Amino acid sequence: VNVREIGSFYMGGRVVEVRGLDPLEVRFTSGLPPRTVEQNGRFDAFQMYVHYVKLAASEAGPLLLWHGGSMTGAVWERTPDDRPGWQTAFLEAGYDVYVSDAVERGRSSWNRHPEIYASAPVYRSKAEAWNIFRIGPAEAAAEANAGGVWQAHPGVQFPTEAFDQFTKSLVPRWLSNDAATQAAYDELVRRTGPCTIVAHSQGAAFALQAALNSPQSVRALVAIEPTGTPHPTGQELAALRDVPHLLLWGDFIEGEPFWRAAFENAERYASALRSAGVECERVVLPRNGIYGNSHLPMLDRNSERIAQIVARWLEQRAGSAPEPHFERRNEVVS
Amino acid sequence: VNVREIGSFYMGGRVVEVRGLDPLEVRFTSGLPPRTVEQNGRFDAFQMYVHYVKLAASEAGPLLLWHGGSMTGAVWERTPDDRPGWQTAFLEAGYDVYVSDAVERGRSSWNRHPEIYASAPVYRSKAEAWNIFRIGPAEAAAEANAGGVWQAHPGVQFPTEAFDQFTKSLVPRWLSNDAATQAAYDELVRRTGPCTIVAHSQGAAFALQAALNSPQSVRALVAIEPTGTPHPTGQELAALRDVPHLLLWGDFIEGEPFWRAAFENAERYASALRSAGVECERVVLPRNGIYGNSHLPMLDRNSERIAQIVARWLEQRAGSAPEPHFERRNEVVS
Repeated sequence: VNVREIGSFYMGGRVVEVRGLDPLEVRFTSGLPPRTVEQNGRFDAFQMYVHYVKLAASEAGPLLLWHGGSMTGAVWERTPDDRPGWQTAFLEAGYDVYVSDAVERGRSSWNRHPEIYASAPVYRSKAEAWNIFRIGPAEAAAEANAGGVWQAHPGVQFPTEAFDQFTKSLVPRWLSNDAATQAAYDELVRRTGPCTIVAHSQGAAFALQAALNSPQSVRALVAIEPTGTPHPTGQELAALRDVPHLLLWGDFIEGEPFWRAAFENAERYASALRSAGVECERVVLPRNGIYGNSHLPMLDRNSERIAQIVARWLEQRAGSAPEPHFERRNEVVS
Repeated sequence: VNVREIGSFYMGGRVVEVRGLDPLEVRFTSGLPPRTVEQNGRFDAFQMYVHYVKLAASEAGPLLLWHGGSMTGAVWERTPDDRPGWQTAFLEAGYDVYVSDAVERGRSSWNRHPEIYASAPVYRSKAEAWNIFRIGPAEAAAEANAGGVWQAHPGVQFPTEAFDQFTKSLVPRWLSNDAATQAAYDELVRRTGPCTIVAHSQGAAFALQAALNSPQSVRALVAIEPTGTPHPTGQELAALRDVPHLLLWGDFIEGEPFWRAAFENAERYASALRSAGVECERVVLPRNGIYGNSHLPMLDRNSERIAQIVARWLEQRAGSAPEPHFERRNEVVS
């Protein structure tokens, strides 16, 4: 691809002051004198890192990729088995692509608790990841924790041989920073909009709310397996009339109470959108003959095919926007 | 620039097991059922995130950019006052550019303590950053902490109006992970080598050691204000005979005991390199008529000029490598 600019910036956040901590005597490097580090002072908190690649000639405008829980923007860059990520797919489709790390994740940095964050971080073990990302069943995770065999869902598309590479990308998370995270995403949407948002899991929950908060700034929204949905008024929903929504789901949802609840929750939200006159398409991949997708379709073996489904859906709604550059296949997606 | 591939991968690290912690009841999203999170299990630790941009036609080979303490690879992407970063400068000079986050920083993730990391994290306040990055004197930092005025070094090149944007990029650090960090860097050098390394501050200390650990894999090394130097044997030094070193320093060092010590320490190492027959050039910018550089020359107002000095020095040592693409100026750098 012919690139005009690669860069990054920080969005949102505020300065907080910490008081009452004792100074630390710290030797940063052996051979150099120790430094007394004043632990009190002013610190940046709740800012968000945003990476971007702008094309020499962008035909489709800005597209924002928002990752899910325990992950960073790296999930869009490359698959763990070393294939191109969705960042590349959407650059090739003619978009300027913005990949952000949510507040407190990755390059967005994070802060001490309880002085700045209200709670302690939550860490996700490899076994927990195996189960919650629907690579294999919960029993397999428990076994794996006990040193047993890692059992995968039959026909799962996740590249299980690269699971150990994937889990290197997992980061800790907090459960007390949602309002700040939403604020940073809202600011990003208003800064880069009108924009297209493709968001995953926890990121998709923030994206659904971001569309409600700035409907004028969102051209279209793709929510990949959203965990959580907003609770808008009828008036707020009606303001989304020009913001088509696509909700996309993978396989193996029936057997997992957590994911069944997430799916049913999103079904109710989709109904509310449609009742308010908002276009909302919902695709369940296995009901369309595409089997085996985990909670991570952007990393699954058929990730390129799923990206094409998303890009074609966006293209059809973009009206005057030209065709994406990738090869088209004739497949029914809904 | 014409780009062949943008992506990322994870390097190094190992799996550690945590036992003895109680499970957590966690509600990740309101409206969805709570999950019981098993806090014990296997976790990835000490891995390193590496981002890369490969050119359609790379003339100069791979170049690795390693950031300093409290920072991430974002420091190379864009300046806080929104000018192109050194990632862009070296892409334009014909290199495939690899930007990594050190172990425990940014997208490399981090782990709990004391179960996995031996110590607690250290956080850097805005005032501490103002002083240690030599934007202004320690007294100014103390005043700033007390709510006073932020006083800058006279003529400092750092874009002080963008200081609040810069500090959003700072991340916590640990002091007990150096061996793991070195191992990940060593693995990266062997994987991408023969390569050129441009490293800053704490990253430069790791880079000097990485060259000793894998001399066959390093074509040239630029250490921007290294904090800390290796303690090699004469035989180890002699193995660097084909690895030219450039050590580059900014302004305002005399007045700061910590930085004077770092400089003198590096001077001793430079002498040892030269005694062993290794080419080692040391540039002190203000002694060459370039005044006002902070500890962050890649972000200073003259960052492009400093990148050119580095790129030209590298070009002269690359032998058959072609000229960098940027405009040349006639300036004496040493």
